[in-house]
Amino acid sequence: MVQSTALPRNEPGITAVVGILKQRFGERCQTGQAIRNQHGHTTTWIDTQAPDAVLFPTETAEVSEIVSLCAENGVPVIPFGIGSSLEGHVNAPAGGVCLDFSEMNRILAVHGEDLDCVVQPGVTREQLNTYLRDQGLFFPIDPGANASLGGMTATRASGTNAVRYGTMKDNVLALEVVMADGTVIRTAQRARKSSAGYDLTRLMVGSEGTLGVITEITLRLQGIPEAIRSARCSFPSVDAACQAVMATIQYGIPVARIELLDQLSVSAANTYSKLDLPETPLLLLEFHGSEAGVAEQSATFGEIAGEFGGSGFDATSSTEERSRLWQARHDMYWACLGLRPGAKGISTDVCVPISRLAECVVAAQEKATEEGLIAPMVGHVGDGNFHALLLIDMDEPEEIAKAEHYVGWLNDLAISMAGTCTGEHGIGQGKRPYLERELGPATRYMAAVKAALDPENILNPGKILPI
Amino acid sequence: MVQSTALPRNEPGITAVVGILKQRFGERCQTGQAIRNQHGHTTTWIDTQAPDAVLFPTETAEVSEIVSLCAENGVPVIPFGIGSSLEGHVNAPAGGVCLDFSEMNRILAVHGEDLDCVVQPGVTREQLNTYLRDQGLFFPIDPGANASLGGMTATRASGTNAVRYGTMKDNVLALEVVMADGTVIRTAQRARKSSAGYDLTRLMVGSEGTLGVITEITLRLQGIPEAIRSARCSFPSVDAACQAVMATIQYGIPVARIELLDQLSVSAANTYSKLDLPETPLLLLEFHGSEAGVAEQSATFGEIAGEFGGSGFDATSSTEERSRLWQARHDMYWACLGLRPGAKGISTDVCVPISRLAECVVAAQEKATEEGLIAPMVGHVGDGNFHALLLIDMDEPEEIAKAEHYVGWLNDLAISMAGTCTGEHGIGQGKRPYLERELGPATRYMAAVKAALDPENILNPGKILPI
Repeated sequence: MVQSTALPRNEPGITAVVGILKQRFGERCQTGQAIRNQHGHTTTWIDTQAPDAVLFPTETAEVSEIVSLCAENGVPVIPFGIGSSLEGHVNAPAGGVCLDFSEMNRILAVHGEDLDCVVQPGVTREQLNTYLRDQGLFFPIDPGANASLGGMTATRASGTNAVRYGTMKDNVLALEVVMADGTVIRTAQRARKSSAGYDLTRLMVGSEGTLGVITEITLRLQGIPEAIRSARCSFPSVDAACQAVMATIQYGIPVARIELLDQLSVSAANTYSKLDLPETPLLLLEFHGSEAGVAEQSATFGEIAGEFGGSGFDATSSTEERSRLWQARHDMYWACLGLRPGAKGISTDVCVPISRLAECVVAAQEKATEEGLIAPMVGHVGDGNFHALLLIDMDEPEEIAKAEHYVGWLNDLAISMAGTCTGEHGIGQGKRPYLERELGPATRYMAAVKAALDPENILNPGKILPI
Repeated sequence: MVQSTALPRNEPGITAVVGILKQRFGERCQTGQAIRNQHGHTTTWIDTQAPDAVLFPTETAEVSEIVSLCAENGVPVIPFGIGSSLEGHVNAPAGGVCLDFSEMNRILAVHGEDLDCVVQPGVTREQLNTYLRDQGLFFPIDPGANASLGGMTATRASGTNAVRYGTMKDNVLALEVVMADGTVIRTAQRARKSSAGYDLTRLMVGSEGTLGVITEITLRLQGIPEAIRSARCSFPSVDAACQAVMATIQYGIPVARIELLDQLSVSAANTYSKLDLPETPLLLLEFHGSEAGVAEQSATFGEIAGEFGGSGFDATSSTEERSRLWQARHDMYWACLGLRPGAKGISTDVCVPISRLAECVVAAQEKATEEGLIAPMVGHVGDGNFHALLLIDMDEPEEIAKAEHYVGWLNDLAISMAGTCTGEHGIGQGKRPYLERELGPATRYMAAVKAALDPENILNPGKILPI
């Protein structure tokens, strides 16, 4: 495992706080080693740094009470959704109290006329969409995992639908947040837009629990489209596929999803999902609109794809076929693990301007081959965002080191192409070294904002900023 | 005129700085009273508070130099675009140096494949769109005035297209900003999305020059749609029109514009623009898409409108008719002034959840009638945002007081409906009393961010926050 830097622990403060919390919350304050480890589990190669206690608050007032107590005693507070983040976001390098939001999972209001809803942070994406379905509504952001909406907000998540519906920053209208001193604030009202003061909503979205603890989220919703059509098309090269994507977006086709699978990923999907796709780069698409609209969109895409050497273009409105195709996409992680049984899959993501995407993906493939790494790649290519899944034998320290070096190289490459070291996973612990390389002196002002809002550094310390 | 509070002046600092700047910048440092007054002109009833000098920088390094000098001497810096803001944003209540960006008006790059561009802050909306037209691209945000893109960014502007394309917060990818200490930062790279650290871009968008001086803007662009269709439809009541808007949006019709004119506004437009529209509430719409797409969209809207008592539905793809209709909408300010020759038009805006819009507009109309105020109303109703244009005799202090009271009442009403005291104009000086009523303790944390990034309060002091 890769060691994360431990931070100094405030032992007397932690002891005092945990004692008080155990008395106050009883069974809702857990201190067993297994549950603590589970809450510092990071899903990647970053080693676990367990918190000292795991709390299960049920309402905002309790969160405020816990944060106030921690503030008085200088003890870290780490918010936890379902633990699907990828860069060590939920680790506790200085110990402290983990706030598990699984019991704050109520959908508080759905305003169908306004196309918005209000949820607690522990509500998961699938839970919300199941609840909304009968009202003809859905929440479009889909990062793959059945993540909590609090976690998705905190990491500025996005995923396959972002090319059409944006990321969490575009779909959060307002937040209730417990600040580092325990004060509960609302960052905005429920109006669809506002020019009233600093955009604290967007400042909190993506702040990874380091500026405040999110206790309520007002989200934009969408009407379920009248018609949905899926399509797939194979291309002779990554470059040809990316050219087709650029042309599609420039043409103004409002694709809802446009995903790239490289040759290795297609091969993995064929085996795992029992498909017989040609083993060349593949685009998977989804169109949302009226019946006539999606038919027109997919036909236009088919023509564009043909111009760039696309073959095997196949569009369908059949729910069954659609599900089969997208299930294969969603199962890519497991499918790719099949490429090297026993290996651990380490997912890293970068995002570049779309004009540089083909160059970046191809360079990443070549470098992986050169280094002897197995790294299938899939991408939300409409946004210029792609993931490499490194398949690593965690018993081989040299291989881990090689993979770590590769991730750093890829981040630097993306940054050199006017891109970012993370399109949607966030910084957490894992990408901290790259933030300053990407944004230089801007990080100093991020640190100033952090110091202003959390002067004692109790909110998820050791994340994002190099402190 | 309504008096704005003056703030203490740092006379020795101002004298020193203006002396140095005159020597350094020659003709590009103007201190004549007329030009100074023009740069503190607020377009509303807020009285002019002129800066001590007006500077015309031509590059970022000069801006950094000026801000550094002002920082060393504790002298205010006020950024100025074209001066079309409405809430006293460019006033200089403590004096200081106005930075007029009219000579930083270069379009630095257009990346057609990535659908983005990089501009200096003095570039105006129309200048950019004229430049882009031959490349088949456009920048969609249209606040009415031919505002500078720096000013639009600083006030989080939006306008008629926001229902489809979002506001400035959704269309700025990255900024170059001169911070209060003179440091030049970039808030983000050019990738379409990122989860890398705090969203300084969104923190700067809407900060009205109080957190940093914007010197370069990376904007998202759109392809010019293949087809554009306009439509209009009259309704028996504001409520019926708003019901039709809600149904249209819930149905998922991607309207590009959907504007409400109340009865009084329609009457004004008929006279000014020589139209013969029925004098009842009117919706004006625009659809963007493929030929078949816009035909389908407008037909579906026509059906929905019929269900809510809409009449005189008329859709057209003729460029001439389209221009005539939207020109009338853009001329509403002048048309409304015709309702009371000699009066000054004071524009105020609020934004509420769309389900409360009809109730809010009707209450605002009734209150105006009750108070004897003439206040035609137009709205970007897809967002729940509307403007009341108060026609005031500025020689009648009682009338001004009544109008001021009315604006306060309307802000409070919007806030009580889960709305905001400003959907797109910003806080500036004029709406400062309402920010805290809207967001309560959140404003304390806005003040903390301001203090962290501008500890000496030199950046556009006296705006947004109650300092």
